[in-house]
Amino acid sequence: MGLTDQIPQRAAAEPGQDARRVEFRAEPSRYRHWRLSVDGPVATLAMDVDEHAGLSEGYELKLNSYDLGVDIELYDAVQRLRFEHPEVRTVVLTSVKDKIFCAGANIRMLAAAPHPWKVNFCKFTNETRNGMEDASANSGQAYLAALNGTASGGGYELALACDHIMLIDDRSSVVSLPELPLLGVLPGTGGLTRVVDKRHVRRDRADYFATKSEGLGGPKAAAWKLVDEVVPRPRWDEAVAERAAELGGKSSRPADAPGIALTPLAKQRDDDRIAYRHVTAVLDRAAGTATIAIAGPQQDPPAGAAGIGEQGAEFWTLAMTRELDDLILDLRTNELELGTWVLATAGDPERVLACDGLLLENPGDWLANEIVHYLKRTYKRLDVTSRSLIALIEPGSCFAGSLLELALAADRTFMLSGVFEDIDPDAEPAAVILGEMNLGPLPMGNGLTRLQARFLGDDAALAAARAAAGRPLDAGQAEELGLVTFAPDDIDWDEEVRIAVEERASFSPDALTGLEANYRFAGPETMETKIFGRLTAWQNWIFNRPNASGPDGALRRFGTGQRAHFDRKRV
Amino acid sequence: MGLTDQIPQRAAAEPGQDARRVEFRAEPSRYRHWRLSVDGPVATLAMDVDEHAGLSEGYELKLNSYDLGVDIELYDAVQRLRFEHPEVRTVVLTSVKDKIFCAGANIRMLAAAPHPWKVNFCKFTNETRNGMEDASANSGQAYLAALNGTASGGGYELALACDHIMLIDDRSSVVSLPELPLLGVLPGTGGLTRVVDKRHVRRDRADYFATKSEGLGGPKAAAWKLVDEVVPRPRWDEAVAERAAELGGKSSRPADAPGIALTPLAKQRDDDRIAYRHVTAVLDRAAGTATIAIAGPQQDPPAGAAGIGEQGAEFWTLAMTRELDDLILDLRTNELELGTWVLATAGDPERVLACDGLLLENPGDWLANEIVHYLKRTYKRLDVTSRSLIALIEPGSCFAGSLLELALAADRTFMLSGVFEDIDPDAEPAAVILGEMNLGPLPMGNGLTRLQARFLGDDAALAAARAAAGRPLDAGQAEELGLVTFAPDDIDWDEEVRIAVEERASFSPDALTGLEANYRFAGPETMETKIFGRLTAWQNWIFNRPNASGPDGALRRFGTGQRAHFDRKRV
Repeated sequence: MGLTDQIPQRAAAEPGQDARRVEFRAEPSRYRHWRLSVDGPVATLAMDVDEHAGLSEGYELKLNSYDLGVDIELYDAVQRLRFEHPEVRTVVLTSVKDKIFCAGANIRMLAAAPHPWKVNFCKFTNETRNGMEDASANSGQAYLAALNGTASGGGYELALACDHIMLIDDRSSVVSLPELPLLGVLPGTGGLTRVVDKRHVRRDRADYFATKSEGLGGPKAAAWKLVDEVVPRPRWDEAVAERAAELGGKSSRPADAPGIALTPLAKQRDDDRIAYRHVTAVLDRAAGTATIAIAGPQQDPPAGAAGIGEQGAEFWTLAMTRELDDLILDLRTNELELGTWVLATAGDPERVLACDGLLLENPGDWLANEIVHYLKRTYKRLDVTSRSLIALIEPGSCFAGSLLELALAADRTFMLSGVFEDIDPDAEPAAVILGEMNLGPLPMGNGLTRLQARFLGDDAALAAARAAAGRPLDAGQAEELGLVTFAPDDIDWDEEVRIAVEERASFSPDALTGLEANYRFAGPETMETKIFGRLTAWQNWIFNRPNASGPDGALRRFGTGQRAHFDRKRV
Repeated sequence: MGLTDQIPQRAAAEPGQDARRVEFRAEPSRYRHWRLSVDGPVATLAMDVDEHAGLSEGYELKLNSYDLGVDIELYDAVQRLRFEHPEVRTVVLTSVKDKIFCAGANIRMLAAAPHPWKVNFCKFTNETRNGMEDASANSGQAYLAALNGTASGGGYELALACDHIMLIDDRSSVVSLPELPLLGVLPGTGGLTRVVDKRHVRRDRADYFATKSEGLGGPKAAAWKLVDEVVPRPRWDEAVAERAAELGGKSSRPADAPGIALTPLAKQRDDDRIAYRHVTAVLDRAAGTATIAIAGPQQDPPAGAAGIGEQGAEFWTLAMTRELDDLILDLRTNELELGTWVLATAGDPERVLACDGLLLENPGDWLANEIVHYLKRTYKRLDVTSRSLIALIEPGSCFAGSLLELALAADRTFMLSGVFEDIDPDAEPAAVILGEMNLGPLPMGNGLTRLQARFLGDDAALAAARAAAGRPLDAGQAEELGLVTFAPDDIDWDEEVRIAVEERASFSPDALTGLEANYRFAGPETMETKIFGRLTAWQNWIFNRPNASGPDGALRRFGTGQRAHFDRKRV
């Protein structure tokens, strides 16, 4: 089997890349598994998985089953539809294959994959599905699942992320969640959560459905709210078109605005460095760290919303966000042993705030809206990343507004009090500036801003921080307001930072993951946080249990003709 | 080590019991680890763990560290304070030992315990701590943590469950959560949740605190909100007394009502049967089931609140609840391979409703209030029990009001349509009756009634069910209203029920646990559900990982002088 320690890549997405690494950059002309077509306000994203083009050796992607490579293309398509196709109001998700919409995650791939791979894979697929819901909620781009055949497991979970689910009535097509009865694992890509929390299927029916491997079709699937409608085959095309038009009718997306091209990212990647235009990461394998530096805008923003459109993918906020997004995915998937990410910025804070301002002053502009929501999703990705995040705020940095959010996302923040006397005694001491971006537009998955989560239950502290918005705050002020964890001076800085970073590398990586997954999400829970918290945590536990992943476990024995052997103890 | 497959019991709590089983019944005169004293409105519950009286061989309970046996006594004390001491308005939780409040769960016990034992142990300790918060919120019985010495790990988590935390200032006593740095696991008994969600410690400070094994004391502990006040030793006794009086001052508990005695439960326990007066369980090891039958009241309730007091522990609702509570704990701990609990009732539904009515018509009566909240806590225990729950509603049953709640807690419910023609053709067909108890007084941990959770997002269905309250509903009506899952007739009954039960036994026990932990908690999350969902699920995952529990893991290596060896991959 090719799924060894990490899953190596077979189909190189970019020329010249290292085949041992997974690359998340994709482009429609190179898609192997999806057909994307746009017809005015309706786009069709049709699944047509090439069974011989898995990301790795050792399995065939039969029946539109998917692996990470299939999902990377899906993510790319979802992103491009938002930025490149402002005219699209409905995305029809369907299949090119007959009788089958999608059979879910490939079981042989899952069975052979090491534990971290399974977890990372599920996280990314969850983020993509959340992104589809985000498109509907915040961009007026609705998703219609047109199940022209059976949707099982992850295939049905993909449909669950859509606004409306249509199932063909051909006496054979069903929806199903067979993970539990067949594989001894959960429908862990949001399935269990969305069935009851989004579609409001009654819990006892949900229980029945998720234990019935053959699934449900026809009127019962609709009566139980598993799908929204069941349509006979002769009326299928017409009904899908009608529903697509209906769903798009509510949209506020502009009909005649030109999209912007998401041009290829300039990325240089080698063993110890990943560099883009605005974002750079230095990898220190001995220390187990990645130091991520983000450069602020090199120039003032253009004038007005039109200027954003003219700059397109070159506009600083969008360019930086795309780079950061790709970097998070790269490090998360390819660099498991770099357990601590050190976050730094460099540049002019006022220019960061100017870019923020331009975006937020044009809430009605579709592109400005898209950029802000993309930044929001990217920071959400950071929140659910299982790496310790330590922000360092030094002279020359630009932790303001949208970039200050990085520090607010960190597990711990150090801000230098004063300057480095030995290096540059005449430097301007670092300042942080709270901006409008910190006060609402970039909520976490739990619906709170990072500032609200930080000051949960302490309204006075929140109000004091808000009142300081717009003013450069030195280390003493930032510490006093609770915006940074520690503010050591030049004399203590190296030692304190070194201890914090080294100490992190000495702790159990698993326990840190659990710690961070709890502390980062104080306060309310939403469907999204339930998926990453409750559902994912249980799924990870199950993935790690011999009843699923041991040599006699259900996941490993599936398809071998042998029944799984279970330890029957209930835990 | 004595911690083999399951932890055997050393100190038999009841004469004649089987030493292989854990027994949850306790009684103050037999406490080995706590000293309970009552002085008017203030009770003092002082920890004085007998290090040689662990529940099992192989470890010593030094420094007031605890095992399940210590917690069983704590649970007993918390219960008795509510029922036997209506005059108590403040419970001071402190230690008899010098310089140490409590060192948390015993590490050698945890290290040697098998995975299911760890999980069960944490669940019970969580329930007891939630119960302390419930006493404060709903009984006017506040808890004051008087930390006269260091509280570390589970010791500090115990304090976190109190309303107010006082720490002695003696230049050595601290509070700490050293689980992550020392043991590679989480503070999983609510610690991570309560620090940020209850005490509102800032997340970056919480991160620092939970990675600093030596903890924090003095002014910093108070400034960071880890404790409410730090008191110098000379003023300690006086300050504790003052604070206890203050906390109790807000209470509405009666000063002069007599308590009721929680008399010993009559329990007969052998290998295949557990019988109390109103509750019986038949254990079928071959099938992996426990069939739990609850008998309704044998007589009409007494008149008025005074009558409840006169009957005391004999009052049906209280007696039944105590039995069910003990049964749940017994089965959960001692019978891991009985993965499905079949729930049945027998008796007169009108009498169940009459008992419910008597309780709810006297909301100002302290005892009626206690009984309802105890029933609520017991059903919550059922909700977090990792067993499949299947309710069978047959002729002669009394699924009404408080007992219908059992069916609403079940994962699946079967109600016989008509009667068993072969057995008793003249029987009255089964009926279910919704009562006031189903409409508010018995919320789940997420704050919803089980009826609200059942009809989440379907207000019309909820309203229709509510409108049917008080009327006996036959199988057809109950199915129509969505109160039962299936309503087969005599011909199909045996087959359908048999398949449901047998099928359950064929699935992965772990996957079922995960499934149920998700489907049972649709809708909002609370601190309580976060503890059992997010926090516990992550902790269970960590407990199962080699970095904690493998031969080179931190939990196993603690105290050996050898450092843990970690797989550094972040998952």
